[in-house]
Amino acid sequence: MDILNIHKETNFKHLNLFSIQYRDRVGNKKSWIFASRQNTPSGAAAGGKLPCADAVVVVPWHREKKRLVVIREFRVPLGGYQYGFPAGLVDPEESVEAAGKRELKEETGLELVKVVKKSPPVYSSSGMTDESVSLLYVECTGEFSLKGNEDSEDIEVLFISRKDAEHLLKNPEIKFDVKSWIVLSSYAAHGII
Amino acid sequence: MDILNIHKETNFKHLNLFSIQYRDRVGNKKSWIFASRQNTPSGAAAGGKLPCADAVVVVPWHREKKRLVVIREFRVPLGGYQYGFPAGLVDPEESVEAAGKRELKEETGLELVKVVKKSPPVYSSSGMTDESVSLLYVECTGEFSLKGNEDSEDIEVLFISRKDAEHLLKNPEIKFDVKSWIVLSSYAAHGII
Repeated sequence: MDILNIHKETNFKHLNLFSIQYRDRVGNKKSWIFASRQNTPSGAAAGGKLPCADAVVVVPWHREKKRLVVIREFRVPLGGYQYGFPAGLVDPEESVEAAGKRELKEETGLELVKVVKKSPPVYSSSGMTDESVSLLYVECTGEFSLKGNEDSEDIEVLFISRKDAEHLLKNPEIKFDVKSWIVLSSYAAHGII
Repeated sequence: MDILNIHKETNFKHLNLFSIQYRDRVGNKKSWIFASRQNTPSGAAAGGKLPCADAVVVVPWHREKKRLVVIREFRVPLGGYQYGFPAGLVDPEESVEAAGKRELKEETGLELVKVVKKSPPVYSSSGMTDESVSLLYVECTGEFSLKGNEDSEDIEVLFISRKDAEHLLKNPEIKFDVKSWIVLSSYAAHGII
């Protein structure tokens, strides 16, 4: 498979569509459309590795409470509340660890005390976007506070036991982020994250 | 938070950008842009529950080989190969189970024999898209075959032991889908999926 060219189709600030012409396995020219947060999607253009993920997703374990931290947050594209992990874009020049510590503090008031595991940039849904995230499994401490929330953020902080995870997963009214669903599902079934 | 209106910004066949005007927590009007596979994003418009996910992602356990099945696949938006699970769009009127069985067969040649666990529609990355997937944990059987692949598909089928998962995760050259990274990471660390 070969990428022939890539064209930016829209001109928005935070997200754009790109079309790609490519040659398939048997040599036919085809096209594909995808969304990107990048101005020049480096992966598609060059097949290259990203220097840093677009965003960080924090999987926080509260050290003293011995609970998994999940947030219930209004998500504009869903027009409703979603259960997921604290997350946000990594600023230019910022490390994934610094972005994770900052987002956790802003969204929940909790302090990151230890990074347990970190993923490389991994892809959210590579059929439709080159968006990548780094997962940061951390231990955190402190009491929750919503003082760091922006006006566009509407967040509730939840401390989840294994039993809580079981109950949440059985509730058909709840919308989950896919990452939190996989982690909660493993936590509920096996007691581990 | 209130959704005020939603406007379709592009007119492509498979993926479009939409802008949403909304009122934030303190009453200010703001806007947000997101990508959708839907012509009328039902979540954003109505805050409603989706009747069915956009896509199915199959997490296949091979019954006789006792291995997790992962595919290495060319992904046009990444301009390169990604490790992930067999997946694809759910056709209109098709059940998630039928779509999972079909995609597993087409992409790997393997037969779905048992659905072990199924998620509701869960969201891929709700800051930038309302795309949802259903995760289908299944047991499968048979020998792999690429005869069902389309010309636009360039796929290798891998049968992964716990040790294999450990090795793959340590390789800095590999691009992972986020869902497969979480599952492989848990499999490598704890021997369970």
